[in-house]
Amino acid sequence: MPYQTTLSIAAPRRGTYNITDKVSHAVTASGVQTGVAHIFVQHTSCSLTITENADPDVRRDLETVLSRVAPDGDPAYRHDTEGPDDMAAHARTMLTDVALTVPVGNGRLLLGTWQGIYLFEHRTSPQQRRIVVTVLGA
Amino acid sequence: MPYQTTLSIAAPRRGTYNITDKVSHAVTASGVQTGVAHIFVQHTSCSLTITENADPDVRRDLETVLSRVAPDGDPAYRHDTEGPDDMAAHARTMLTDVALTVPVGNGRLLLGTWQGIYLFEHRTSPQQRRIVVTVLGA
Amino acid sequence: MPYQTTLSIAAPRRGTYNITDKVSHAVTASGVQTGVAHIFVQHTSCSLTITENADPDVRRDLETVLSRVAPDGDPAYRHDTEGPDDMAAHARTMLTDVALTVPVGNGRLLLGTWQGIYLFEHRTSPQQRRIVVTVLGA
Repeated sequence: MPYQTTLSIAAPRRGTYNITDKVSHAVTASGVQTGVAHIFVQHTSCSLTITENADPDVRRDLETVLSRVAPDGDPAYRHDTEGPDDMAAHARTMLTDVALTVPVGNGRLLLGTWQGIYLFEHRTSPQQRRIVVTVLGA
Repeated sequence: MPYQTTLSIAAPRRGTYNITDKVSHAVTASGVQTGVAHIFVQHTSCSLTITENADPDVRRDLETVLSRVAPDGDPAYRHDTEGPDDMAAHARTMLTDVALTVPVGNGRLLLGTWQGIYLFEHRTSPQQRRIVVTVLGA
Repeated sequence: MPYQTTLSIAAPRRGTYNITDKVSHAVTASGVQTGVAHIFVQHTSCSLTITENADPDVRRDLETVLSRVAPDGDPAYRHDTEGPDDMAAHARTMLTDVALTVPVGNGRLLLGTWQGIYLFEHRTSPQQRRIVVTVLGA
């Protein structure tokens, strides 16, 4: 039977939140030695990304790139029910990842040295986010 | 043995087509209680996205964002064999998802309340699209 | 037990490298008849994409689109430790895919006729890239 658990992550503001350790703990709890860990956000205005875990400027610059492609309060948006960051958040979610899958080997996540797994919160107001982690393998 | 089936979806024009129910049926047919459902388009000019299922303006605005990043008939494109929407469609596919994986728990898709699974057709002419659904778990 | 192997791919310069055959060989070696093949780059400045395998202009045009969204040496970037292509590479990675999953049926990758799997190198200098392939199923 695959192992499955739900994480609840506080995202007090727009930005990135490192969840690598929490996903690692799920892999350990699963007992899976070889397989994959699947991570899924149950929301449409935040997402996931794997990026450099050393220099925080990288994540700031990712935000800069996204803010150009999908700016807050763009007059072209028709959907703005929850404020100027609402539609921008949906677009940023589309351009990044709602779901990620990471290989598991020797009972641990097979990430590269510089890879971290991040929740990418795209709303500017505080949110509580649910992330389902499923570990498959043997 | 994993469960696998192929969906054939008519996409009469560019835009989004909700396939959540069809993927849900595949999960039910699989008998899998805990695991993941994998969804894959066998094409390079349409894609998949999970986004808000309530206000159709959200999907229209996603289209607006993509049309700026990858406009039809851009003079910089070298590939235009099938018309002005051809290369734009490949680029939009790259920026969204060819494959999506959704967790399965208690025998059903573990989607958030506002999440729908959409085929995102990027060609302007009518297409018939093949989507392979594979359900893994137990 | 899932099958897992690591590919080492030379990427002498920025651009796309077709790895479809190497992933196919892993599927054959796995013996899996029905399931999925998961492909994962252990880096933060290269990525994966599935796109058209016929006209090389398609991949050149994808590069054109990415170079507009995440140009080299953008003065807005704060992170530039490894040169003007450093942060651009991280952003291009975010907008494409670090991980891809492809269905397996009848013991082979269920790709569409025009789909190829590409390593997308975003650094301009020569790199050696590690890609973990995991095949799940039965």
